[in-house]
Amino acid sequence: MQKDNGIASEDVNQANIRFYCAFENLSIELMDKIWKHDENVVCIHPGWDLFTGWLAIRESWTTIFSNTETIRFTITNTKIKIFDNKIAVVVCIENIDTKDPYSGLAIRTGVIATNAFERMEPNCEWSLIHHHGSPITNYIPPNTSSY
Amino acid sequence: MQKDNGIASEDVNQANIRFYCAFENLSIELMDKIWKHDENVVCIHPGWDLFTGWLAIRESWTTIFSNTETIRFTITNTKIKIFDNKIAVVVCIENIDTKDPYSGLAIRTGVIATNAFERMEPNCEWSLIHHHGSPITNYIPPNTSSY
Repeated sequence: MQKDNGIASEDVNQANIRFYCAFENLSIELMDKIWKHDENVVCIHPGWDLFTGWLAIRESWTTIFSNTETIRFTITNTKIKIFDNKIAVVVCIENIDTKDPYSGLAIRTGVIATNAFERMEPNCEWSLIHHHGSPITNYIPPNTSSY
Repeated sequence: MQKDNGIASEDVNQANIRFYCAFENLSIELMDKIWKHDENVVCIHPGWDLFTGWLAIRESWTTIFSNTETIRFTITNTKIKIFDNKIAVVVCIENIDTKDPYSGLAIRTGVIATNAFERMEPNCEWSLIHHHGSPITNYIPPNTSSY
């Protein structure tokens, strides 16, 4: 992870990790906690159209979760940029292990994500306001111990 | 275009338009003007890996321009969010008319883009700091007069 300004950067990194933890756990309750509940938040799933507003985004996650049996993320190449301790833009690679819903075979795919977080008052937590995931063509999994 | 806060929103919209104008004109000089020249700027072309830092990003545009004969953009669904008049996040759909480099046949494709701009001092211009474009599967061109 590239550091920006110390503690704030680590806080943003933890928020980013919580987002993928919510996804791995297929938990709409955890997604509820990480996203800002606002009509202007944006979510772009790989290959999908864009969703605007928390209610539409929440519904998209519910649909994804109900069609996913298992999914695991290894997040690499995390790059964090923070502006005035208010807005953070995170870029990372989602190395995804999941199963084909039809054949049940293991699948490894790669997605590049842009995640933007806003630091909320009064609790100073970083809430997700923008997720843009897009498929990596010619994806090569990273050389990690889990592979 | 969804308005955020008036004049600033229009300024960001104009900056976003200048980005696509630079692309249409296959002009690295115009790209030089719209991007922030910084080692932390990020560019993710559809299906490509990510490029970090202006020098690497500039080289990627040079490669794209040298392999593109003609390209036209119709930008729709522009949504602008501005934070503290310092950072702007733009989401838009790039409706692209281009030619297959091998067959010469006309191609229409759709890309969703996240573009982030930073308001620079002292000239108050909005410079591009983040571009993330990803292909839209099952793309349907908009119903505009040019189609």
